[in-house]
Amino acid sequence: MPVDPADCKVVPADLDGCFPDDFYSSTNFRTQVRLKGEWIDVEDQEMDCGIVIDPEGTAARCIPMTEVRKGYQIVVGHAGVRVFPAETEVKRSLFEFMASPVSSEKPKGVTVREIARAMERAKKAGEKILAVLGPAVVHTGGVEPVTRLIRGGYVNLLFAGNALATHDIEQALYGTSLGVSLDRGLPADEGHEHHLRAINTMRRLGSIAKAVEKGVLKSGIMYECIKHQIPFVLAGSIRDDGPLPEVITDVLAAQTEMRKQIPGVGFCLMVATMLHSIATGNLLPGWVKVGCVDINPSTVTKLMDRGSTQTVGIVSDAEPFLRSLAQELGV
Amino acid sequence: MPVDPADCKVVPADLDGCFPDDFYSSTNFRTQVRLKGEWIDVEDQEMDCGIVIDPEGTAARCIPMTEVRKGYQIVVGHAGVRVFPAETEVKRSLFEFMASPVSSEKPKGVTVREIARAMERAKKAGEKILAVLGPAVVHTGGVEPVTRLIRGGYVNLLFAGNALATHDIEQALYGTSLGVSLDRGLPADEGHEHHLRAINTMRRLGSIAKAVEKGVLKSGIMYECIKHQIPFVLAGSIRDDGPLPEVITDVLAAQTEMRKQIPGVGFCLMVATMLHSIATGNLLPGWVKVGCVDINPSTVTKLMDRGSTQTVGIVSDAEPFLRSLAQELGV
Amino acid sequence: MPVDPADCKVVPADLDGCFPDDFYSSTNFRTQVRLKGEWIDVEDQEMDCGIVIDPEGTAARCIPMTEVRKGYQIVVGHAGVRVFPAETEVKRSLFEFMASPVSSEKPKGVTVREIARAMERAKKAGEKILAVLGPAVVHTGGVEPVTRLIRGGYVNLLFAGNALATHDIEQALYGTSLGVSLDRGLPADEGHEHHLRAINTMRRLGSIAKAVEKGVLKSGIMYECIKHQIPFVLAGSIRDDGPLPEVITDVLAAQTEMRKQIPGVGFCLMVATMLHSIATGNLLPGWVKVGCVDINPSTVTKLMDRGSTQTVGIVSDAEPFLRSLAQELGV
Amino acid sequence: MPVDPADCKVVPADLDGCFPDDFYSSTNFRTQVRLKGEWIDVEDQEMDCGIVIDPEGTAARCIPMTEVRKGYQIVVGHAGVRVFPAETEVKRSLFEFMASPVSSEKPKGVTVREIARAMERAKKAGEKILAVLGPAVVHTGGVEPVTRLIRGGYVNLLFAGNALATHDIEQALYGTSLGVSLDRGLPADEGHEHHLRAINTMRRLGSIAKAVEKGVLKSGIMYECIKHQIPFVLAGSIRDDGPLPEVITDVLAAQTEMRKQIPGVGFCLMVATMLHSIATGNLLPGWVKVGCVDINPSTVTKLMDRGSTQTVGIVSDAEPFLRSLAQELGV
Repeated sequence: MPVDPADCKVVPADLDGCFPDDFYSSTNFRTQVRLKGEWIDVEDQEMDCGIVIDPEGTAARCIPMTEVRKGYQIVVGHAGVRVFPAETEVKRSLFEFMASPVSSEKPKGVTVREIARAMERAKKAGEKILAVLGPAVVHTGGVEPVTRLIRGGYVNLLFAGNALATHDIEQALYGTSLGVSLDRGLPADEGHEHHLRAINTMRRLGSIAKAVEKGVLKSGIMYECIKHQIPFVLAGSIRDDGPLPEVITDVLAAQTEMRKQIPGVGFCLMVATMLHSIATGNLLPGWVKVGCVDINPSTVTKLMDRGSTQTVGIVSDAEPFLRSLAQELGV
Repeated sequence: MPVDPADCKVVPADLDGCFPDDFYSSTNFRTQVRLKGEWIDVEDQEMDCGIVIDPEGTAARCIPMTEVRKGYQIVVGHAGVRVFPAETEVKRSLFEFMASPVSSEKPKGVTVREIARAMERAKKAGEKILAVLGPAVVHTGGVEPVTRLIRGGYVNLLFAGNALATHDIEQALYGTSLGVSLDRGLPADEGHEHHLRAINTMRRLGSIAKAVEKGVLKSGIMYECIKHQIPFVLAGSIRDDGPLPEVITDVLAAQTEMRKQIPGVGFCLMVATMLHSIATGNLLPGWVKVGCVDINPSTVTKLMDRGSTQTVGIVSDAEPFLRSLAQELGV
Repeated sequence: MPVDPADCKVVPADLDGCFPDDFYSSTNFRTQVRLKGEWIDVEDQEMDCGIVIDPEGTAARCIPMTEVRKGYQIVVGHAGVRVFPAETEVKRSLFEFMASPVSSEKPKGVTVREIARAMERAKKAGEKILAVLGPAVVHTGGVEPVTRLIRGGYVNLLFAGNALATHDIEQALYGTSLGVSLDRGLPADEGHEHHLRAINTMRRLGSIAKAVEKGVLKSGIMYECIKHQIPFVLAGSIRDDGPLPEVITDVLAAQTEMRKQIPGVGFCLMVATMLHSIATGNLLPGWVKVGCVDINPSTVTKLMDRGSTQTVGIVSDAEPFLRSLAQELGV
Repeated sequence: MPVDPADCKVVPADLDGCFPDDFYSSTNFRTQVRLKGEWIDVEDQEMDCGIVIDPEGTAARCIPMTEVRKGYQIVVGHAGVRVFPAETEVKRSLFEFMASPVSSEKPKGVTVREIARAMERAKKAGEKILAVLGPAVVHTGGVEPVTRLIRGGYVNLLFAGNALATHDIEQALYGTSLGVSLDRGLPADEGHEHHLRAINTMRRLGSIAKAVEKGVLKSGIMYECIKHQIPFVLAGSIRDDGPLPEVITDVLAAQTEMRKQIPGVGFCLMVATMLHSIATGNLLPGWVKVGCVDINPSTVTKLMDRGSTQTVGIVSDAEPFLRSLAQELGV
């Protein structure tokens, strides 16, 4: 036998413009309160208000905090209040406040920690960590933290394009990225030519690997990959200049090479590239966890729209994210 | 007497698919090369290519790196090459590559350093530093670095709204921001009610200042402002819940109070608020330098569209930016 | 007694690089196929592939279309294939492809039709239609379609701010919006002063209503509201110039007025204003349907993050949306 | 001999809270007014205010409209007022109000007209019009207006990728785009497989052209291109499924083909594709006018950052833009 539900509890406001301490905080869902054994509809339904009971104790309405006057009968606690759809369902939706995966309004420290823990778990489990990186990693100044991740064993496979590798090498050779000095933030003299000269230098030497071997390329993401024998796939795109010798210009051949490298991947970190992120998302099985970081919410939205639902989307800036991640991983 | 301009210098390609080392790197502007004393139009004009001279030495065209074959006559250096509009004008525009103020593809370290230097200069000059902050500062986890800036003397005046102060106080009282735990990144139980309870608590005590005095509010941005006697203006907006007792609900009264505080401001840091940033931009004289940080490029674009041209726009994430800034300032 | 499930059906590929017509199209979820009565794991799991069975009929793997060779045994139909989580669950998630509410990649014609039908239903039911409009309605050229909606009876209540009304009046008096000519798209001479002169003119006359009465204001959104006795609430914000005489500068007073007008609203159309949309979302009961149109996906995301889950978010441009809507409604 | 500049003209305010009709409207630049033959600094410099002269006629300050009281001496006209930097320079910058190329807050009708006029000029001059289209053209419902542009002779060359062509063909065969019904805006049953089945069908037939010839493909963008012998280049990308038979999977081969088609192009319309827009921008000479339409401001920003400065950027939605353009061109 169901227990007869209690009436809602009301206490008089003790201060103008304030609720009593344990006030019931309203939602925008249809709500009823139990008064004298009857379920009464709450009027003026509005979220983030309290509920006031009229002096006769027969009617209830939402009231904003500022309109409360001393002596008003305010509902406190959750007893004798019900919302439609059922409270649990409402709660779930309320608990999803701010829970959309692509909001930029999320605590960033905790997100970095979560990604770091997932990477540590993958490493410990002997699974490969795949990094998918776009050129904004370099433009924003993220080369240094990525090299720390590589040296620390947190990148076991790299998927990228001509642009990431070119600007990484441009930075190693000239200190600029797309001609912009990464020290001074200003365009360097003739800087817009640097990326093309960087590509040309690699092509003249025959490969990036040769450039490392000959001591021409002495730092950066590509340098570390070669030094630490991290396999990489540089997939071509129609906006490529050059391209670098290692770039696979046939996109089907590039896909094939990516497919070949994917088995064993346990975590995938995508940073600042819509093209390569969606391409990799297309290839990954659904149980591989993915962290996708982009300053543009639409990259994450599109990735998830296309079925990569295992993705944790993080709307944030490439360099600060990577720097915090490297720090969190202690590399 | 003007010196007769030299012909352009050409050297044969020594490798397939590569330019000679000092190759002329093309733009997409109309270009001529001087051959046998005549200015010849370059055909197939395209940016980021080289220029190849035909075997007869009478015609020139742009050639992508990949199409170069050994023996092709490639233009090197800048002599004997001219572009229309004049090279200097082109250069300026080329130097502005990546120089749009609102791109997210900028080196972030150097931007942080620049803002830090501007704040140090203002402090040294005895000018006030004005911080204009939106609630995403709290949501992303930026309370801690802001409190370090305040304690370090780098915030002398705060303009914000009910939301920033509410979520800052919510975090101090409940450890959440809009109900999301800043430690775990997940919605807390009943967390969506926290901001309203935080407001109610302040209203019951009479003011934020009273809450500090009575030991109820013990940390956060508002706490530090009150402890260090940093003046603040909390301007009301129609989306406010509550609001907090210190919020000025009449927008003209709020503007008046902001105007009163502005004299003496030498630098203004705006983070993650379009409403308050544009409002402050409306009030500031044009010679006060402004740094505006927002993850949404349109905030910066709109600020500048409305005439606040002294603004350095930074498309980045609130918390990581503030953390790096606090570190750069050594606070 | 459950029927013994059949083996999966396979047919040999008849063409290189193509699947047979009824091929099973893979997801990225864990999948098994039934071969000789045994459930076998599909290897190389990848979305948007087919499944090939090895010649012995004992193993299965995903295969991209392009790698198919004539004679390969390809799975067709859905019999003998199962995915984990259960197919129905997967299906639901797959059916939500492109189903995120804030994507800009949605068919716009059908969205306009849906909003139009909802407005017609509300009108027929005698419910009020509330329009919440931001200044970009005017900047993009949307005044004309809005006036048609008003005259056609599809706007019964208007919530906006000083900016919408100011630029609407600026356009009526000067043909510009924020100084930009709406005919030529170029800044008008001294155009940046127009909005201030428009406000000053209204203030000198005492009110917008007086300006209509005296024949000074002869067109536009505010004109039509006054002519057709559509109630409006102009809520102040701290970025306001002026403001116009009808603007309620106290935000609590403005909220109170908005609350007073909301009962009876059956549909709410929000266009191009984050501030007023969230403010209105805060006040509306959860069962009032909302269409929120903004070119910036984050406005819609934020609205829904804050609990206005009854919202249909439409990432689109103000003027073209309003023009199509007016046309769809036949006004 | 320079004429002695006049003093500024002042008139008393005749109404509280209002300026006289011809009031001088302030900027945020340093300003002086001439009083009794002396240039006096204006205090409290702020944009969008008036200037009040103190009763003694020896000091001047900016005053917001709302603070004006009857009898205040307000500066009118421009005589005797000077700003630093010089007025002309200021004016230029003021005239650029709202003039940033990537704002979404622009009158859309006039932008459409401008693009239409440029296309008409190109057509009349016998120049080719190049369309560069992304898949959101199809997703948003833009196939129909594009087919009208093709039939009307306003598209003479098409650059796109596998996705645009696939979803166009998917729509022709199944009425969906990425599985979403373009009539009902909802995901169709098994709709997520449609794009793969569409590709497979084309591959089985050998080419899109064959599908048109055999009557399998009877409408859409690709159909119209084939019917009207519009050359197209479909360039491959690593995120391609399939791809369609006509897709050039080697990106260098695709670039070569694009280069071959570019001579003779007089206008280029880019809609909803960052990859193909930047790729085409890389290839086009600087004097070919470009209109780039994208709902995401960063596409336009990036295109211009990379040197395609001849671009008119339009932040708008694909389908409504194309529909208005088709209407404006009368096709």
